[in-house]
Amino acid sequence: MTNILRAFGSDNYAGVLPEIMSALAKEGLSKTHARAYGSDDVSHEARLLIKQKFNSSSNDSSPGVYFVFNGTGANILSILACTRSYNAVICSDVSHIYCDESSSPETVTGVRLIAIPATENGKIDINQIEEKLDRLGDMHGAQPKMLSIAQPTEYGTVYTIDELKQLSVLAKKYKLYFHMDGARLFNAVSALNCSLSDITTSVGVDILSLGGTKAGLMYGEAVVVFNESLLENDIDGDNPLKYCHKQVMQLASKQRFIAVQFLTLLQNDLWKKSSEHSNSMAQLFKKRLESIPKKNDKQLIRITKPVETNAIFVEIPQDWYEPLSTAFPFYIWRKKSFEVRLMCSFDTTEDDIEQFMNIINELIQK
Amino acid sequence: MTNILRAFGSDNYAGVLPEIMSALAKEGLSKTHARAYGSDDVSHEARLLIKQKFNSSSNDSSPGVYFVFNGTGANILSILACTRSYNAVICSDVSHIYCDESSSPETVTGVRLIAIPATENGKIDINQIEEKLDRLGDMHGAQPKMLSIAQPTEYGTVYTIDELKQLSVLAKKYKLYFHMDGARLFNAVSALNCSLSDITTSVGVDILSLGGTKAGLMYGEAVVVFNESLLENDIDGDNPLKYCHKQVMQLASKQRFIAVQFLTLLQNDLWKKSSEHSNSMAQLFKKRLESIPKKNDKQLIRITKPVETNAIFVEIPQDWYEPLSTAFPFYIWRKKSFEVRLMCSFDTTEDDIEQFMNIINELIQK
Amino acid sequence: MTNILRAFGSDNYAGVLPEIMSALAKEGLSKTHARAYGSDDVSHEARLLIKQKFNSSSNDSSPGVYFVFNGTGANILSILACTRSYNAVICSDVSHIYCDESSSPETVTGVRLIAIPATENGKIDINQIEEKLDRLGDMHGAQPKMLSIAQPTEYGTVYTIDELKQLSVLAKKYKLYFHMDGARLFNAVSALNCSLSDITTSVGVDILSLGGTKAGLMYGEAVVVFNESLLENDIDGDNPLKYCHKQVMQLASKQRFIAVQFLTLLQNDLWKKSSEHSNSMAQLFKKRLESIPKKNDKQLIRITKPVETNAIFVEIPQDWYEPLSTAFPFYIWRKKSFEVRLMCSFDTTEDDIEQFMNIINELIQK
Amino acid sequence: MTNILRAFGSDNYAGVLPEIMSALAKEGLSKTHARAYGSDDVSHEARLLIKQKFNSSSNDSSPGVYFVFNGTGANILSILACTRSYNAVICSDVSHIYCDESSSPETVTGVRLIAIPATENGKIDINQIEEKLDRLGDMHGAQPKMLSIAQPTEYGTVYTIDELKQLSVLAKKYKLYFHMDGARLFNAVSALNCSLSDITTSVGVDILSLGGTKAGLMYGEAVVVFNESLLENDIDGDNPLKYCHKQVMQLASKQRFIAVQFLTLLQNDLWKKSSEHSNSMAQLFKKRLESIPKKNDKQLIRITKPVETNAIFVEIPQDWYEPLSTAFPFYIWRKKSFEVRLMCSFDTTEDDIEQFMNIINELIQK
Repeated sequence: MTNILRAFGSDNYAGVLPEIMSALAKEGLSKTHARAYGSDDVSHEARLLIKQKFNSSSNDSSPGVYFVFNGTGANILSILACTRSYNAVICSDVSHIYCDESSSPETVTGVRLIAIPATENGKIDINQIEEKLDRLGDMHGAQPKMLSIAQPTEYGTVYTIDELKQLSVLAKKYKLYFHMDGARLFNAVSALNCSLSDITTSVGVDILSLGGTKAGLMYGEAVVVFNESLLENDIDGDNPLKYCHKQVMQLASKQRFIAVQFLTLLQNDLWKKSSEHSNSMAQLFKKRLESIPKKNDKQLIRITKPVETNAIFVEIPQDWYEPLSTAFPFYIWRKKSFEVRLMCSFDTTEDDIEQFMNIINELIQK
Repeated sequence: MTNILRAFGSDNYAGVLPEIMSALAKEGLSKTHARAYGSDDVSHEARLLIKQKFNSSSNDSSPGVYFVFNGTGANILSILACTRSYNAVICSDVSHIYCDESSSPETVTGVRLIAIPATENGKIDINQIEEKLDRLGDMHGAQPKMLSIAQPTEYGTVYTIDELKQLSVLAKKYKLYFHMDGARLFNAVSALNCSLSDITTSVGVDILSLGGTKAGLMYGEAVVVFNESLLENDIDGDNPLKYCHKQVMQLASKQRFIAVQFLTLLQNDLWKKSSEHSNSMAQLFKKRLESIPKKNDKQLIRITKPVETNAIFVEIPQDWYEPLSTAFPFYIWRKKSFEVRLMCSFDTTEDDIEQFMNIINELIQK
Repeated sequence: MTNILRAFGSDNYAGVLPEIMSALAKEGLSKTHARAYGSDDVSHEARLLIKQKFNSSSNDSSPGVYFVFNGTGANILSILACTRSYNAVICSDVSHIYCDESSSPETVTGVRLIAIPATENGKIDINQIEEKLDRLGDMHGAQPKMLSIAQPTEYGTVYTIDELKQLSVLAKKYKLYFHMDGARLFNAVSALNCSLSDITTSVGVDILSLGGTKAGLMYGEAVVVFNESLLENDIDGDNPLKYCHKQVMQLASKQRFIAVQFLTLLQNDLWKKSSEHSNSMAQLFKKRLESIPKKNDKQLIRITKPVETNAIFVEIPQDWYEPLSTAFPFYIWRKKSFEVRLMCSFDTTEDDIEQFMNIINELIQK
Repeated sequence: MTNILRAFGSDNYAGVLPEIMSALAKEGLSKTHARAYGSDDVSHEARLLIKQKFNSSSNDSSPGVYFVFNGTGANILSILACTRSYNAVICSDVSHIYCDESSSPETVTGVRLIAIPATENGKIDINQIEEKLDRLGDMHGAQPKMLSIAQPTEYGTVYTIDELKQLSVLAKKYKLYFHMDGARLFNAVSALNCSLSDITTSVGVDILSLGGTKAGLMYGEAVVVFNESLLENDIDGDNPLKYCHKQVMQLASKQRFIAVQFLTLLQNDLWKKSSEHSNSMAQLFKKRLESIPKKNDKQLIRITKPVETNAIFVEIPQDWYEPLSTAFPFYIWRKKSFEVRLMCSFDTTEDDIEQFMNIINELIQK
C-alpha cells in the first residue's frame, strides 16, 4: 500500500471518482439499514433515473434495469436473456465477450459465439454478417439470435449513428437481438456529442451492458433492457430477467451501494465530466506523441487507430517499452509490430502525460 | 433516500462497518492507480493475511485465496473447482446453495445437488449421508464428489468441532471434498470461542466460502482453498482455480477494493468485534423475548432453534406480524406455525431491541 | 457370442421382436437410399401413425413426434423443450430421470431436479408437490416448470386415470408442464386395458417420452409433444423442438431405421401383443412365487409391490440369490431386506419361469 | 415406402451393408438375452477387436472403446473427456463439430470452439494454429486444450501421414489433446493404403471418433481413446470416460447391436471392401465428369477439390441442378458458384453414375 502508481494500463487501474466516493461514504447510506437485493429506495431511484436518461418517455416499468457486479456479468446476463442454448451470438473477433470473458458465455448460456474478423478499426464488418446467417432455420447449425457490438469498440473507435442504424436494421431483418456492450458507453456519447438515447434507444438497441467501473465507479455495471418483449417472453409470461439476474450470480445483497454510484454518476452530468476528461486527455496525448520529431527522416512512432475516445494505440520502438512501462504500466497489444495501448482515465493528468513524454525525450536523446 | 430504516430482516440489511468505510475512502487507495484483477499490492497483502489467519504455517502459495463478489459466487466457484459435470454435491435441504442460489450450481457447473433433509437444528444429518453414496462407481448415477455444509447453519446453529471432524472423516473415506459455506463464519468462530483455523484447516475442510458482506463489508467474499491438490489437479498441472475464478464472473477488475475490506476486517480482530456484537445482541434479544409473560397460562411466543449465533427463530402470534414488521422488517420463515427469523447485525443496538419489545408490550396490553 | 443367456435382469436384456427384425431386414429399406435426418417417407409415415394412435383428431402438424436413440435422450429432450435453465423439474426420488441418467438433466439443460420421496408403490406423492412450489415467483429459488412422472412407475405400478387427472389439474394450476416418462408405456396401457390416448392426451399430458427399446425394439424411443404451444413458443415463434432435437445429439441420420420399428410396433397392435405378454408372464410368475410353501410356518418370500405390469419386486432369502442369479441374472433392489427385481419381457417364456421355480424348489428342499 | 431412391446426397442416404444386416438378424443375437449397457460378450469382443486393429501391442484395458449412437455423440464425448469447461477446442471452420452439431459442444461441455479458416482443401491451416494459442495461461481467455481435425476432411481430402505428425507435434508442444473426427476414417485409410494405426496411434492421436454409420452400419460409432491418461485423470483416479459416456446420453442399453456391427465391419476387412468401393466410385465419377466436352471452348463443369476419398465437389451450370437432383438428390455446397457435393457410398453402382451422366448428356444436347 506504499508506492504511488500512475499508469496507462487501463481505465480500471484508476480508483474512484471523488463524488462517487463521497456518495458511498455518506452516513445516511452506510449507517442505516435497507432492504436487500434491490428492494430499497436508492436502487429504485437509480433505476428510474437510468430509464429517464435513456428515454424520457419511458415509464416506470420500461426499460428494465438490472445492476450487476462487473462487465462480464452484464454481458452474460444480456446473452442469457436473449437466447436459448441452441442459439449463437454474432460478435467481432476483438470483442470483449469473445476475447476476455473466458468461456463464460458458452458455459453459462450454452450458446455459440460466432466471431467475425473485425475491421482495422475494431468494428464489426457489416458486410460479413449475412454470410454467418445462411444456416438460419437449419437445425444442424447453431442459430444466430443476437448481434453484439461494443460502443466504443475495444480499439476506442466509435460507431456513428448511421452505422448503428444500419446494424440495427440488419439485426431486425433477421430477428437478431441487438446488444451493445457499453463498458465505456459514456466515452462514446461524449465523443459523438449526443445524448445517451441517441445511440441506444433511438437506433434500436434491444439490450445494453452499461459500464460503470471504467467510468470511475468502485464497482458496478447495469444491464438496461429496451426491448420490452424480453421482459415478458418467458414460457408463462413472467419476467425472465429477474430470474436470470440471480442465476448468473449478479444480484447483490447490498445493491444500494451499486445504485448510489450510478445515481451519482448520472446526476449533474458527472458521467459527462468524467468521459470528456478522459477523451480530452487522449487527444492531448495523441498530439504530444505526434509531436515527436522524426529521426533520420523516419517516424519513431505511429498512431495506428483513430483516437476517438480515451484509448491510444501506437507503435513504439521496442526498446522504449521497458523504461516507459516501468514508470507508467501499460499493455502491449501486438508484439510483432510493438503496438501498445495507452488508456486515459477520469483522473489522468496533463502532468502524467508530460512525465511520460519526458521519458520519451530522454530515450530519443540517448 | 429519506426514511431511516432499522430492521431484523437480515445481516445484509445493515450497511458498512465504519472501519471498513474509512479504509475504502482512504485517498491512498481511491486516488491512486493500481494493477487490475488482483495483481496489486493490497490484494496480495490481503491474500497473505487470510492465509496466516487460517493456518500460520502456510506459505505464500498455499492455500489459495480468491476474492469474489457475493456468496453465491463463492459457492459456485467452490463447486466448480471440486467437480466435473457428472458429479453431485451432498448438502442439506435448508442450505443456501440448495434454497437460495437459483439453479446456478446446476447451470454453471452441470452437477446434481443431492439435498438431505436437515435436522431440526438445520444441520446435515450425518447418518443419512452414506445412503446417498450407494451409487458411487455406477455410471448411471450422478457421482457425489463434495460434501457441503454451512457453518453456522442457515438456522444460526453451530457445528461443534467434534461434529466437523466426524463429517470430515466421512468425506475423506468416500473421497468427497469437504466444503464449508462460511457466509457467517466469523459468527461461528465467536460462538465457539475458537480460532479461525480450529474449525477449518484443523478439521480437514478442503475449501471454504468465506463471507464478508454479512460481517459488515460493503461487498466481497473469498474462496479459500486449503487442499492444495485442488490448485494443481488440472489435466496439465496448471492451477484450475485461476481460470474458474474468471469463468464464473467473479474476478473484479478493481479487486483492491474487496481486498482492503478483508484486510481491515482481519486486522486488529475487527471480525471478532463485529461477530461478537451481533451474537451478543441475539442473546439479549432471546432473553428479552423469553421474558414475555404468559397469557392465560400460555406462552405467547416460542423460541424454536437454539440461539447460537446472530439469528433468532421464534414463533409469534400471527397478529403481531404486521405491526412489528412495519417498524422493523423481518422475514416469516414458516407460515403455518408463524415462525419468523430475527437477524442481528454488527450494528444492531440495544435500543433497536427495546423498541421492538415496546411494540410487543403494547400488543400484549391491547 | 456362444452361451445362451436367459434373464430377468431387465426388459432391455431381451433382443428384438421378430416382426421388428423382419421389418428392419426388408431389402426395400436397407438396400435403397433415403433422405437423412427424418426427411424420408418411412419417418413421415411413422410420425403420422403415432399421432393417430394417440389422438385420432390430431392433424398433420400436431402433436410433434421426434425419434430419439434412447430413454435418457427422450427425457432430456423433453426437459429442454419445456424449460429455461433457471427452472426446476419435480419428480419422484425413484424416477429414472433422477436415479439413472447421471447428471445429464442438469448438465445439458441447466435445471434443478427436485426429487420428492416416492410413495411405497413408487408413485409421486401428490400431497407433497405443493410444498415444493412455495418459492414460485421468488428469484432466489429455482423455479419449478415441469412435473415429471413415470407411467408405469419404476416399481411397475400404474397410475390410474383418476390419479393422472389429479396430477394434471395440479400441474396446470401452477403452470407446470406435465411430462410422462413412458419408457414402458405400452405395459401401462395394457394393464389399464385402455387406449394410448386415454392416459396421455385425454388426461392432459403435455409431452411424452415414448419407449420402444423395452417393448422389443432394437433401439429407439420417441418424444411426442401434445401441447402445441411447445412447438411455437420460441422467442421468435419458430419451433424450438427441431433445434433441441439435434442439439441433444438425438437426431439420427438413418432415422428411418428407428421409424420403421415404431411403424411395425404400432401396426396390427404388435405393441399390445408384446406388452400383454410380458404383463401376463409377470402375473404367472407372481402366482408361482406365491405358491412357494411356508417353512416352519414362515413365508420364505414376500411380494413387496403390487404386480401391475411386467415387474415383480420380491424379498427372497439371501442364500437364494447366488444360485438363482447365476442361472437367470437379475438385480438386487434393496440389499438390506434382500428385495430383488424380476423383469419379464416380450420373450419371457413359461419355461423360463418354471426353470427358475425348479431351482427355488431345489433350494427349499436342501 | 414405395419409390426407390438413388442419391448422391450423403453416404448416410445409403442403407446397411448386407453383411451387417445379416449379423444383426442372426437369431443367436436377436433372440437371446444379454447383459445391458455393454457388459455382454459381443460388446467385449468388439472392443477388443477394435483395440487390436488400431494397435496390436495394446492390452485389454488400453485403449478404451466406447460405443455411441451417432457422430455428434462421439465428438461431444471426446471433447467432454479432454476438457474442463474453461477450455477451448481448435478446429477448422468447415469442420462438422463447428458447422453441423448445433451448439452441442458448447451446451454440453461449456467450452469455446475456436474455428480457423480452412485451407482451400478443407484442412486446418497449421500456420494459423499458434496465433490462437497466445492467450495460454491468461485467465481472461478460454484456454485451448484440444486440437480437433477431421480425417478425411469434410471436403473428402486426406491429411498425409507427415501432415498428421506435424499437427501432433504441435499439439503436444502446447499440451493440446489431438482429436481426430474419423466419421469416414476407413475412406482415409483406403485412400492412403495404410493401416488403421498408421494414421492414428502411430502419429500420436489421443482420441478418435470412429465412424460406422457412413461406412454402412445401420447406426453406431465409437470413441476410441489412445491416450491412457485420459482414462485415469479424474480427480480421484477413477476413469472419467465411463461416466461421461452415460452422461452424454450415448450409453445404449442393447449395446450388443452396435457392437456386432463393428465386429462384422472389422472382421474379414469388410471396412476395406466398403471404403475402397466408395472411393473407387468417386474416382470413376470424377473421370466421367471430366470427360464432359467443352462447349464453345469453355469447360461446363469444374472439379473444385482433389477427389481423394468418396466425395466429389464440382461446379455445375445452375440449370442442371433441378433435373439432376430430382433424379439423384444431392446438396448444393456453395450457392454463389453453384458448387455441389456428390457423395458415393458403399452401394453406389456404376449404373448410378452412368444414369447421372446420361441426364447430363441430355442437358448438354438440348
